[in-house]
Amino acid sequence: MRILVVNVNTTPSMTEGIVASARAAAAPGTEIVGLTPRFGADSCEGNVESYLAALGVLDQVLKYPEPYDAVIQAGFGEHGREGLQEALDVPVVDITEAAAITAGLLGHKFGIVTSLDRTVPLIEDRLLLAGLDRRCSAIVASGLSVLELEQDHARTVAAIVAKAKEIVEQRGVEVICLGCGGMAGLDEAVSAATGAPVVDGVAAAVALAEGLVRMKLSTSKVRTYAPARPKKLSGWPLP
Amino acid sequence: MRILVVNVNTTPSMTEGIVASARAAAAPGTEIVGLTPRFGADSCEGNVESYLAALGVLDQVLKYPEPYDAVIQAGFGEHGREGLQEALDVPVVDITEAAAITAGLLGHKFGIVTSLDRTVPLIEDRLLLAGLDRRCSAIVASGLSVLELEQDHARTVAAIVAKAKEIVEQRGVEVICLGCGGMAGLDEAVSAATGAPVVDGVAAAVALAEGLVRMKLSTSKVRTYAPARPKKLSGWPLP
Amino acid sequence: MRILVVNVNTTPSMTEGIVASARAAAAPGTEIVGLTPRFGADSCEGNVESYLAALGVLDQVLKYPEPYDAVIQAGFGEHGREGLQEALDVPVVDITEAAAITAGLLGHKFGIVTSLDRTVPLIEDRLLLAGLDRRCSAIVASGLSVLELEQDHARTVAAIVAKAKEIVEQRGVEVICLGCGGMAGLDEAVSAATGAPVVDGVAAAVALAEGLVRMKLSTSKVRTYAPARPKKLSGWPLP
Amino acid sequence: MRILVVNVNTTPSMTEGIVASARAAAAPGTEIVGLTPRFGADSCEGNVESYLAALGVLDQVLKYPEPYDAVIQAGFGEHGREGLQEALDVPVVDITEAAAITAGLLGHKFGIVTSLDRTVPLIEDRLLLAGLDRRCSAIVASGLSVLELEQDHARTVAAIVAKAKEIVEQRGVEVICLGCGGMAGLDEAVSAATGAPVVDGVAAAVALAEGLVRMKLSTSKVRTYAPARPKKLSGWPLP
Amino acid sequence: MRILVVNVNTTPSMTEGIVASARAAAAPGTEIVGLTPRFGADSCEGNVESYLAALGVLDQVLKYPEPYDAVIQAGFGEHGREGLQEALDVPVVDITEAAAITAGLLGHKFGIVTSLDRTVPLIEDRLLLAGLDRRCSAIVASGLSVLELEQDHARTVAAIVAKAKEIVEQRGVEVICLGCGGMAGLDEAVSAATGAPVVDGVAAAVALAEGLVRMKLSTSKVRTYAPARPKKLSGWPLP
Amino acid sequence: MRILVVNVNTTPSMTEGIVASARAAAAPGTEIVGLTPRFGADSCEGNVESYLAALGVLDQVLKYPEPYDAVIQAGFGEHGREGLQEALDVPVVDITEAAAITAGLLGHKFGIVTSLDRTVPLIEDRLLLAGLDRRCSAIVASGLSVLELEQDHARTVAAIVAKAKEIVEQRGVEVICLGCGGMAGLDEAVSAATGAPVVDGVAAAVALAEGLVRMKLSTSKVRTYAPARPKKLSGWPLP
Repeated sequence: MRILVVNVNTTPSMTEGIVASARAAAAPGTEIVGLTPRFGADSCEGNVESYLAALGVLDQVLKYPEPYDAVIQAGFGEHGREGLQEALDVPVVDITEAAAITAGLLGHKFGIVTSLDRTVPLIEDRLLLAGLDRRCSAIVASGLSVLELEQDHARTVAAIVAKAKEIVEQRGVEVICLGCGGMAGLDEAVSAATGAPVVDGVAAAVALAEGLVRMKLSTSKVRTYAPARPKKLSGWPLP
Repeated sequence: MRILVVNVNTTPSMTEGIVASARAAAAPGTEIVGLTPRFGADSCEGNVESYLAALGVLDQVLKYPEPYDAVIQAGFGEHGREGLQEALDVPVVDITEAAAITAGLLGHKFGIVTSLDRTVPLIEDRLLLAGLDRRCSAIVASGLSVLELEQDHARTVAAIVAKAKEIVEQRGVEVICLGCGGMAGLDEAVSAATGAPVVDGVAAAVALAEGLVRMKLSTSKVRTYAPARPKKLSGWPLP
Repeated sequence: MRILVVNVNTTPSMTEGIVASARAAAAPGTEIVGLTPRFGADSCEGNVESYLAALGVLDQVLKYPEPYDAVIQAGFGEHGREGLQEALDVPVVDITEAAAITAGLLGHKFGIVTSLDRTVPLIEDRLLLAGLDRRCSAIVASGLSVLELEQDHARTVAAIVAKAKEIVEQRGVEVICLGCGGMAGLDEAVSAATGAPVVDGVAAAVALAEGLVRMKLSTSKVRTYAPARPKKLSGWPLP
Repeated sequence: MRILVVNVNTTPSMTEGIVASARAAAAPGTEIVGLTPRFGADSCEGNVESYLAALGVLDQVLKYPEPYDAVIQAGFGEHGREGLQEALDVPVVDITEAAAITAGLLGHKFGIVTSLDRTVPLIEDRLLLAGLDRRCSAIVASGLSVLELEQDHARTVAAIVAKAKEIVEQRGVEVICLGCGGMAGLDEAVSAATGAPVVDGVAAAVALAEGLVRMKLSTSKVRTYAPARPKKLSGWPLP
Repeated sequence: MRILVVNVNTTPSMTEGIVASARAAAAPGTEIVGLTPRFGADSCEGNVESYLAALGVLDQVLKYPEPYDAVIQAGFGEHGREGLQEALDVPVVDITEAAAITAGLLGHKFGIVTSLDRTVPLIEDRLLLAGLDRRCSAIVASGLSVLELEQDHARTVAAIVAKAKEIVEQRGVEVICLGCGGMAGLDEAVSAATGAPVVDGVAAAVALAEGLVRMKLSTSKVRTYAPARPKKLSGWPLP
Repeated sequence: MRILVVNVNTTPSMTEGIVASARAAAAPGTEIVGLTPRFGADSCEGNVESYLAALGVLDQVLKYPEPYDAVIQAGFGEHGREGLQEALDVPVVDITEAAAITAGLLGHKFGIVTSLDRTVPLIEDRLLLAGLDRRCSAIVASGLSVLELEQDHARTVAAIVAKAKEIVEQRGVEVICLGCGGMAGLDEAVSAATGAPVVDGVAAAVALAEGLVRMKLSTSKVRTYAPARPKKLSGWPLP
């Protein structure tokens, strides 16, 4: 099976990291194809960037010329999943929701460590809409921006571990989600330091997508995600 | 004061209807400027169309060359308000939220009559995120599409009145919100038939926006809607 | 248009402060009439006082001899709004709800700084009933009583600013509501110190009431606030 | 022990019915004293009447010259319990909450059959504030006013039984609460017709109050219900 | 009337303490019979132990040879109440729910001090299912295990008082529940130190059970707790 | 990898059906081992049976002599998952939660069709505890008991299809979960009749378990599901 894993920003090195994470998690026989939007921000840390990402991801998926079996939107707290579900016949998995679902299978309460504080409300909104908020007892920021996360590995680990320990000890968190695509690969260090399982949303999304494909299940088309009605669209395909 | 009222679709006749509704509600001295997106769908009844609208509205507002005091996003259940709040310094009001807020001031429970059933979940999501869902006891569809609403006035009134009466009588609804920009101007007929106050979201948004401007209040910039961080944006301004 | 702004306590100097705040916020052409209850407490900081206020406000409004277009109940966290809505044909706005609604238009989460800790649960109850609680992430007390708030201006500002900064920095608050009628006029100092917009409930209520009047909307009479059934009332008008 | 059971309206025959119900439920050695407000409505079916009841009940309790051990406020869906809790040192039980608590001990979901539809939202509000709403799956009206309930016994039973059966069969209700003080004594007929246990709020409140007194527990005075601060009160005792 | 009070663990000295607490709370004429499970853990502080307790309690009740009027399950945060309700015709009261109900009658918010941190989530789950969670603003652990609670009285009191004061001062708690059967008898010390009423779940459950029996109310048999359908059961009665 | 799939009742033919369903869903290389409890009910349709199942499943898993990688508890709405999570080091997946999670990935709202009405509240409770209730808009009963489901295939399909269509058309349901282990294999017929995707909880659980194993994730041991403390257990292993 072939799964498209779509970065939400235009930085190819982040796509590579995400793809590596996805491949490490994939079952034998799963082909992971990484896509990078043609337009949008080089990193997503805000609302406009997130809306741009919604269309940038959709645009790139619709242009993909080969068959595929599932799509993963690889941005934490970003918009766009509903549009993909409506536009596509294959199942769609968002890494924010995948992380929350997986963490929920592993402990009574989970928490999320993300990049900057300004992205916390976006993640809160995604979990609320997905109905996955009630067992999330903490969403906290490491204080490092998406691009800083990639720079100084030791600093990044230290910042995330510090926040992860804090929410395990003080907020009842039993499972940690790495709340940014740029944190891929840090799960072992964080788990070793906290004693708690650590969920990487990209890996979690791959597992969920593979399961849906194997069960031959895809997005319901009876109501919310029914194919779009015939419309006159201007300025599409973008840009 | 000048308020930009932005349609979410590319149909100029709908922009005209919305502007007429806004002008009828505006206080003396308020100038209403209607904007129509350069790109997007001719009517919004789905998720992709809604995400396109988010950017279409933003694009049009950012290109507007004159000063203005507030922005109203005139689509029921559409995405995009958060992006406008982040990008702009003036207050932003979404008509979905404006209608719900206003209805909440007038009765113990309110309900919404919208166009097609497929748009009900989008409205549910907007209210949930805004924390305005709990006193909304019914969101129902008239069964008429956005463009059909404009065609046969008598049929439109009959369809909306039928649903409005149903939710007043059976679901505890005390106030009706017209859940589609294309329903502007129907409030009197629906109110006469049900005995309940009827809220037009565009008018409600104008009143709220005027109030914010007069109080010199605008979107908080301390966290969620702080100005975007410096980023490399590709493919923007769109298209 | 004429709006009655009714203090919830019997201290005329507080009515004056409230009226000044309302007038500063009113649109040209809006006449603000301040009313002070004939009976009740000189300041409201508890449950019995709040129930007395409910009737004191109603009594004073019902005795008002001239026509009017809207009523504002100017007490933070007090009982009584439902009674006014039932008894009157004009729209009624409570300043607690007005502040929460307005703050909700300006940020992802808001907070309230009130007078004494014992009034926090009353405010919580009002927001819960109004369905406006979910985006309120903190209600905190300055520790100053209603009457102390009026005494030492510098101390008052310092106490409120300290609490406002605390909840902005630690509780995700992006907008501050001044949670006591006696805090009118402090918005600029608090906003300057925190960088967050500050909402004065009286001003917010004036804006909402003006909007309702201009839209010719008033309380629904189809169920909860239908006119009272014919009853034998003893001991009324009070006292 | 002596328990004051206070009617919320000024109709002495209803006080008698309530007292009879309370006495039938009381343990040996419990003295039930019935009180009727000096002022207020002859029956409570609305918001103003409910606020009047809050003060009418408080007034009557404060004037009671003998010692007593607990107070029961015998109105379904009425205001006032918080004021009593603040003003008194003995425990206070509201029959709405008592019925909901008791029903919650007997089944997975409970329902309430009340008098007129207009009182349903008041009951909803009381349960919401008390945190007792989630397991209440239906609040429905018999269509008979408070005073009509007392007139034609057969009609009253038939109306209540019809509604009770409906919510047992269609809304998952397993326990019925009689949602009006005037329904005292109908529990057996309703239980026989539905097969479900039927809770009379007055009896339930007596049992809860007796338990609190025997455990020597009373309202906490550490915060919400601390004694009122010294205030200048005008027009009190009312009228 | 005779009430069976069933310990959830196999330690007879704890049964004795629970029975003493129940007897102290019981009305004249109530006979308290203490039961200890034949199998299970000597103290319950985890999930497997809790499930064992569910069956151990049921087994012991079903084997009890004399008539009885009510059953109290005397474990804080344990499984099993639903099974007893289904299997028995008499009312069943769980001490976790009894404590929460009683605390809810005494203050705006309550809190629970339990033994070890690992039992906090179990208590959270019980309150959530019972719909009694919303007014519980804190569940905290003393850090002492169930058996340690019985050893050093002074240390136990000090640990519980410290936590109780903390949640009264910092988390809005107005009433304290002792969240472990082994804390029976500590209510006076904790109340003296905090100024807040302290609820002992065993006493609270006795009062509620007595009330239900006196009202001749028992578990509804119309749906969730209807008698079991005829089944082939293997390995029962256990062991 | 080896996954233990444990039936909750003692009927071996049902275990066979469940195992067949699990094997059909499993990835190549996954070995499915079916287990049947030594004690308990021949079908689970109530609370006592559910508690027995909790221990029956645990007993059987603990006795299993070979290594294994994950455990699936194959009962819809049954107790026991928390005990398995505490007792085991490998991940545990409950089919109720697995179905809800999977349905949540496929539509805006999902619904469940189960066997008898009396089991609906048990399923509600499981979803509530798992925080997976909010997007479930309907849980309905086919009216056929667990064992009847296996008897007349045509009648079973007709009963389930009728209920599934009802909730798709009237309750906003977009995805159907088959709410009973005995419904395995009916997904295609129900999907064909409703046009909605149909989730079989056993298949869904296999996919989730495989994913967790492949990601090397297991239950967090930092708090709720930490290994049991050393205890004196009587009567265990049961019976």
